[in-house]
Amino acid sequence: MRHFSPPRNIHARSCSFRKYYSEQPIVLHNKTIAELSDNLRAGAVTARQLVEEALERIDDPRGEGSRTFMTVWHDRARDLADHIDRHAVWRDERLLLCGIPISIKDAFDVAGEITRAGSVARHHEPTAKFDAEPVRRLRAAGAILIGRTTMSEFAFSGIGLNRNYGTPSNPYDRHAGRIPGGSSSGSAVAVADGMCAGSLATDTGGSIRAPAALCGISGFKPTFSPALLEGVFPRSYSLDTVGPIAKSVSCCAILNAAMSGDDRIPISYPRSKSVKGLHIGIVEGEPLEDLALEVARAYSVALSQLSEQGVRLSHFSLPEIAEIRNINARGGISPAEAFAIHRNLVAKSPELIDPIFLARLRKGATVSASDYVDALRQRQTITEVVCTKTHRFDAIIMPTCPVVAPPIADVQTPEAFEAMSALILRNCNLANFLDRPALSIPIHLPGTAPVGLMLVGHNKCDRDLLSIGIAIQEALIAAQL
Amino acid sequence: MRHFSPPRNIHARSCSFRKYYSEQPIVLHNKTIAELSDNLRAGAVTARQLVEEALERIDDPRGEGSRTFMTVWHDRARDLADHIDRHAVWRDERLLLCGIPISIKDAFDVAGEITRAGSVARHHEPTAKFDAEPVRRLRAAGAILIGRTTMSEFAFSGIGLNRNYGTPSNPYDRHAGRIPGGSSSGSAVAVADGMCAGSLATDTGGSIRAPAALCGISGFKPTFSPALLEGVFPRSYSLDTVGPIAKSVSCCAILNAAMSGDDRIPISYPRSKSVKGLHIGIVEGEPLEDLALEVARAYSVALSQLSEQGVRLSHFSLPEIAEIRNINARGGISPAEAFAIHRNLVAKSPELIDPIFLARLRKGATVSASDYVDALRQRQTITEVVCTKTHRFDAIIMPTCPVVAPPIADVQTPEAFEAMSALILRNCNLANFLDRPALSIPIHLPGTAPVGLMLVGHNKCDRDLLSIGIAIQEALIAAQL
Repeated sequence: MRHFSPPRNIHARSCSFRKYYSEQPIVLHNKTIAELSDNLRAGAVTARQLVEEALERIDDPRGEGSRTFMTVWHDRARDLADHIDRHAVWRDERLLLCGIPISIKDAFDVAGEITRAGSVARHHEPTAKFDAEPVRRLRAAGAILIGRTTMSEFAFSGIGLNRNYGTPSNPYDRHAGRIPGGSSSGSAVAVADGMCAGSLATDTGGSIRAPAALCGISGFKPTFSPALLEGVFPRSYSLDTVGPIAKSVSCCAILNAAMSGDDRIPISYPRSKSVKGLHIGIVEGEPLEDLALEVARAYSVALSQLSEQGVRLSHFSLPEIAEIRNINARGGISPAEAFAIHRNLVAKSPELIDPIFLARLRKGATVSASDYVDALRQRQTITEVVCTKTHRFDAIIMPTCPVVAPPIADVQTPEAFEAMSALILRNCNLANFLDRPALSIPIHLPGTAPVGLMLVGHNKCDRDLLSIGIAIQEALIAAQL
Repeated sequence: MRHFSPPRNIHARSCSFRKYYSEQPIVLHNKTIAELSDNLRAGAVTARQLVEEALERIDDPRGEGSRTFMTVWHDRARDLADHIDRHAVWRDERLLLCGIPISIKDAFDVAGEITRAGSVARHHEPTAKFDAEPVRRLRAAGAILIGRTTMSEFAFSGIGLNRNYGTPSNPYDRHAGRIPGGSSSGSAVAVADGMCAGSLATDTGGSIRAPAALCGISGFKPTFSPALLEGVFPRSYSLDTVGPIAKSVSCCAILNAAMSGDDRIPISYPRSKSVKGLHIGIVEGEPLEDLALEVARAYSVALSQLSEQGVRLSHFSLPEIAEIRNINARGGISPAEAFAIHRNLVAKSPELIDPIFLARLRKGATVSASDYVDALRQRQTITEVVCTKTHRFDAIIMPTCPVVAPPIADVQTPEAFEAMSALILRNCNLANFLDRPALSIPIHLPGTAPVGLMLVGHNKCDRDLLSIGIAIQEALIAAQL
């Protein structure tokens, strides 16, 4: 932030956050980004107050902050907040995230820092020269970056455990120590606990949507966009996407607009549509198998509520899901790419890699190039077939995860870990394979175990899906009132 | 062609071609496509006459027709020519190829026919349901498709031998029986011998440019374009391109405009620029190693002529060529893709595959997916590096092939065959790896062994390269007069 003028009152930086925060109501926890922006512009809150509230929650020794963040940028965030407040930078309405505290997953490059991607093996890597492209875009939209959130080592697994940097506990039933979901574990907990208003994360097979669903918030995975992957630590060259985790779909829409936009042009973001007349396809078969009771109940209630409000629901089946499973059983796409990414580490310092992931990496080494080529070709064919089958729907729908977050103690053996990770990501990774935008909306009742509803849109129709998602989230909230 | 009305005079179809042709001068052999179009529009020649001239040359038992064509569409070509003449279809100036006899390589789907791709192994495959996309576009531009030309089995090798369908002899020094170059062997000989005015071919590592250079004509490989590969028998999913072989670069430009255009919009094609002030980069090092005397001499004369006419020539080196060789030595890109394409055939009927290619296919089976993934990533990096290094040039230049066409008798052992094929394609495949447009211009003196000059343009700047190529060809012709 070297282009910002230094704060005039040096003393302010060492003051307790209480000066800025304690007289104000808690806002990060229960306001949308749009509401926070309105509050900032109306003078009801300052950027510095938002930053102090975020920092207080992160630094609270009774909270999950130390297991949720790898790095916290206290000074940089405060400096920027002060600058924004002093110069009323939020007057520029194109700055969609002006003054809003945002966290980023540990997978993103930040100039001058080492990108560890949740792994101790990267401690001696050189520091990044530039911000990752989506980080650059968030800054350009005025976001205040508050810190780097923990993640599954190298973004493997949907569980969210990290043996080196700690595992943040799920906000639901916290004393039981449930998994946060992964790989963007820290991002989901940071948002759920009000340590930031939104988080930038990555999704290769569900890494945004699964923790969002299990922590009771919203997450959006866009269509594959190589331009956004510059400076992002890779998990799979073919399947990686960058997207937001936030309280609501409308928050995700604003973050996504900022992230996919450019600082030189005015940015707009999708608005809600009416749900009446929406045609939603309900995927039958595998995505509905082995549902936990809580999931089955919340899912069926949500479907009834949507139907009552005029959403047209049509059941259909996708036998292609079995084909995708076969392709993955024959080696698939991401395991070979993961081995290509980590082969030097596997050769030199295998002891630094979690044994479960090391075993997966070694399996990726055995895939033949021709099988990989075939998998990519079959992916293309299946994608086209499913496109034709689902063309008539505005979106297709299924539970984000078949289960609710289990206690961390239940996934301690490699077998239980792998089985639960596969189950958590089972429905999510369909959208990555088919390269479609997808989002997760919380549908559980307050105080019960979080359950997510997944909406999958059409390739490259990200804004349409976000509009539909905003409308559906509003309709479901209205139904609960 | 079922939508064309039947010829009014049925007798005309059974008449000898002499009625249409013998009183006219030979035109396909020594006129450009633009001249032929002008002649057609001026009434100096009819489409039927062009078709009869092409068919006469193909059917001439003293010529190479039987080894150059897999299939000849006598009746369909005559019907369409008569229709064009009767209705003066050439009045529509958007039809860039109206009435022009064009051949297509055996790799393209034609509705109702089996695409054999030069192999007996595909005899029992189903017939194609649709024309390949570039074939459809040629028809839309009014081209008269005259027949399918022979090719190296499955487009392997730059030699152009085909043990099953015969090898057309190089037009130079014909009694010696020299190789035509490959894999588009039939396309090059068909154009050189005046059996058509141009041919549609494919280029994965030089399959258009090498036979064009060795047969003394022009060939153009465009930037990779997946839309044009629909209905084209694959050789490599990552490297395949579709382009023209014709007498001159200006003929290639017209064919390419028709091929990359759409029948619903007016099509234009590139025009010549002045060579004065062009900045051309001369690649030093490997592309100039082991040059045959004829090639070295013709290349240096061409460079002097260009320099004399005001072309600015700058020497530079590309150490990345050695890196590319290393990538290919570690397995590369196309061998694994080839095995993925042919694995069923290798498993079921290996005896139907040429043993040299079978050995190559089996080598492709051993490449690991992670090596393949790395090769694709390294390709991207090298492409960007070379892009930066060559940005200042309008084009870069090197001999198309380091050698002139050897006698067929000299490449009979597998070792001699493989070594010669690698040498012939050595310079060409650089443009495929770097995904740049490239063209070959004949630069030998009439009556001497054909030598090609290769110009390599910038990614996606195909029209610019064609304009430069037309200008350089005109400048070289002017210098020889």
